[in-house]
Amino acid sequence: MTDSFDRVDDLREEPRTDISMGHRMQRFVEALQLRITRRLEGLDPDGAFNVERWSHREGGGGITAVIEDGAVFEKGGVNTSAVRGELPARMAQAFEVEQQPFFATGLSLVIHPRSPHVPTVHANFRYFALGDDLMDPVDQWFGGGADLTPYYPHLEDAQHFHRVWKEVCDTHDDVADYDAFKTACDDYFYLQHRDEARGVGGIFYDYLRDDPEGTFFFSRAAGRRFLESYVPIVERRKDTPVTEAQRAYQEIRRGRYVEFNLVYDRGTKFGLETGGRTESILMSLPAHVQWRYDWAPAPDSPEAHAQWYFAARDWLQLTPDDVPPGTA
Amino acid sequence: MTDSFDRVDDLREEPRTDISMGHRMQRFVEALQLRITRRLEGLDPDGAFNVERWSHREGGGGITAVIEDGAVFEKGGVNTSAVRGELPARMAQAFEVEQQPFFATGLSLVIHPRSPHVPTVHANFRYFALGDDLMDPVDQWFGGGADLTPYYPHLEDAQHFHRVWKEVCDTHDDVADYDAFKTACDDYFYLQHRDEARGVGGIFYDYLRDDPEGTFFFSRAAGRRFLESYVPIVERRKDTPVTEAQRAYQEIRRGRYVEFNLVYDRGTKFGLETGGRTESILMSLPAHVQWRYDWAPAPDSPEAHAQWYFAARDWLQLTPDDVPPGTA
Repeated sequence: MTDSFDRVDDLREEPRTDISMGHRMQRFVEALQLRITRRLEGLDPDGAFNVERWSHREGGGGITAVIEDGAVFEKGGVNTSAVRGELPARMAQAFEVEQQPFFATGLSLVIHPRSPHVPTVHANFRYFALGDDLMDPVDQWFGGGADLTPYYPHLEDAQHFHRVWKEVCDTHDDVADYDAFKTACDDYFYLQHRDEARGVGGIFYDYLRDDPEGTFFFSRAAGRRFLESYVPIVERRKDTPVTEAQRAYQEIRRGRYVEFNLVYDRGTKFGLETGGRTESILMSLPAHVQWRYDWAPAPDSPEAHAQWYFAARDWLQLTPDDVPPGTA
Repeated sequence: MTDSFDRVDDLREEPRTDISMGHRMQRFVEALQLRITRRLEGLDPDGAFNVERWSHREGGGGITAVIEDGAVFEKGGVNTSAVRGELPARMAQAFEVEQQPFFATGLSLVIHPRSPHVPTVHANFRYFALGDDLMDPVDQWFGGGADLTPYYPHLEDAQHFHRVWKEVCDTHDDVADYDAFKTACDDYFYLQHRDEARGVGGIFYDYLRDDPEGTFFFSRAAGRRFLESYVPIVERRKDTPVTEAQRAYQEIRRGRYVEFNLVYDRGTKFGLETGGRTESILMSLPAHVQWRYDWAPAPDSPEAHAQWYFAARDWLQLTPDDVPPGTA
């Protein structure tokens, strides 16, 4: 999977004085969007991303790339945006700063496969700056991460996903810390009202501000490894036969995904509050969802075994002997 | 529809010194729950409410009555609760009071019919008290309301629903004000990120604290009229034939209902934050829901005409000449 994009990206850029970090990050995420959408399209005989540009009412805009009704991917989006505006009062309060201009750019993706045997995945890589002058921001930081939400989980998949992210962090251990980022992911993607993790986690980081050059280098490396973290899992699971009952179970589990995004997710709230484009923000919601009252899996069923995975666990320390039957 | 429950309820109770207002309201909502579930069951040849009692971890509990997979009602709940606990810090802050014990009781219902021609309905009637002694609370207030969310709206239905609530308010105009409550409903059940009303509104009121006896009298009268506001609409629309395309449209519209409840609804947030019973709170979510990216109705279609109704309008002032074709 090495191509010229990889090679360019493996090099640490010299610090630039001609364009801002915000601009460099924007260029990176737009190139990454193209790369990810092309590769995912290559996996889906019926799927093509529909690409649209949109404008923010204050300044900037984004590129929304949405796939719907594919053979492999039922619904998904790989979006980039680069937005300039005045920090909303509530966010200024949350950040404990004065109201002032902000710049935000990033890539955010959510992919909901059609088959319940293929996990849903989410990732984002973003940059935020405060102040009038992007060449010399008052404050700037990076955030991002990736997390995996299987319906019928396998240890093999969870370990593959985490191994890729651990390698990226270990390679950039001047700014990244897998253990801390993994714990932050478990803490963030947690449904308090269900006492349940969204899935098997991954990494999550925010407010990385100490070393912008080093963190940009890490962000690029992480973004570049996304396909490697996910595509082998899709290839391994996409042809497993599916029953109607498995599909219904998938729709119920997707309800938890909707609950997380609408009740807890900061990115969703930030987007809706700052007048972001609703359809781009809510493209993260799955196509078909069910809520049944007080649903619970049958004892000892594959669905009951799956439940064991929706908790914070040290996936890389586990062996096939540690997991419920049929889920290695 | 007059029965002994009605007659008792039409009488204004003498102020009681032997039991608290909280207790009186709890007794009322539990009797109302029985009445509403019985009547709705009578409308649905395949539907029966499943009734469960549950306990709150701090004190009190509730009665959850849920209907699923009926012929007329696809999913719905008519819940009562009476909960005693310590006010959470965030709520004490919102109410601008010290942390102290609270008592809350009420009935909350959401009914999602199977047919897209029958509107979804929501209503609640609740009482809240602060302080150690419920016989002499530091503060107490009533809240409540009812709102209608049609998929294929008709002016006739919106007018019937509003007319009932206007009559109740007009009869109790010492504590109730239809115009103000109707506007509060339009303001509350509004999806900012869609610039769209949840449905055709109804009434909404909160923090009615000036005259507890008079407001209790009004709350009882309002609760008692709920069936009259809704059942005639169900009877009028339930046998209209349904197409697959109408059903898909209904599922997309239900997505807006989920968005409102999870993003904006204070009752949902209060319940989830105070450790309420998740399944009782989220029984308000419909059974089958769809999200499609950037969906919009075809021009001049019935679905496009429906959109006209999802806005704050003075339904009782309108005539059939004012509405889109086919929606009188």
